[in-house]
Amino acid sequence: MLDKMLNKVEHIALAVSNLDEAIAHYEKAWGLVVEHREVVEEQGVEEAMLRLGESYIQLLAPLSEDTTVGKFIAKNGEGLHHIAYEVDDLEAALDSLKQGGTQLIDDSPRDGSRGTKVAFVHPKGNHGVLVELVEKQ
Amino acid sequence: MLDKMLNKVEHIALAVSNLDEAIAHYEKAWGLVVEHREVVEEQGVEEAMLRLGESYIQLLAPLSEDTTVGKFIAKNGEGLHHIAYEVDDLEAALDSLKQGGTQLIDDSPRDGSRGTKVAFVHPKGNHGVLVELVEKQ
Repeated sequence: MLDKMLNKVEHIALAVSNLDEAIAHYEKAWGLVVEHREVVEEQGVEEAMLRLGESYIQLLAPLSEDTTVGKFIAKNGEGLHHIAYEVDDLEAALDSLKQGGTQLIDDSPRDGSRGTKVAFVHPKGNHGVLVELVEKQ
Repeated sequence: MLDKMLNKVEHIALAVSNLDEAIAHYEKAWGLVVEHREVVEEQGVEEAMLRLGESYIQLLAPLSEDTTVGKFIAKNGEGLHHIAYEVDDLEAALDSLKQGGTQLIDDSPRDGSRGTKVAFVHPKGNHGVLVELVEKQ
């Protein structure tokens, strides 16, 4: 195993039906501010990143019903979707997880939002929690 | 609204069936270490807090099947349960949320683990996300 795999919670992702409505709620009720907003076509989402301490709250809205997040909301309703951890070396983290027998969704890094490299870890074998690993470039 | 309500993500709570097994996984796969462990009878859980940056990953195991977390796992399986935000002034935060029309579970602070004061915000009216507010003493 790596000496230290995870740096911090990079973001907590919340699936929402309507991004503008959710942003308005998070600004009004919680006093958070959108620092970045981006459509990520490959993942079928539009995201808004709201800074909170060293982490972000990520609001994730599906681009259509037949996307991963669209199907999640149809099944579960809006709510907690995944946690993202920041790592220094995504390839090394994936190797370490693979060696330890943790089931991955992505065997190798792919492009994430904000110019990051990302990979997802399967909730199966991780006590039901979908995890995204994020390496800043 | 308060100028600044939230300080940081205090913890992310993950519902798990067996605390020892989940701790072993988080130590082995993710390299995290338990900093605190406590039975919280009022909430029907045993919790383990694993430090990650300025936040904790909280593993939450039900003390029996008829607890809130026990029923959550029976319905949804293990997984993401709630987010906790740290606030400086819990009473003021609850007042601000009430004035803004956000639905609360706890109208006033109650005792949490580690000598904290806590209150829960209802997922309804918060885009499906159960939130705990934590004030350190």
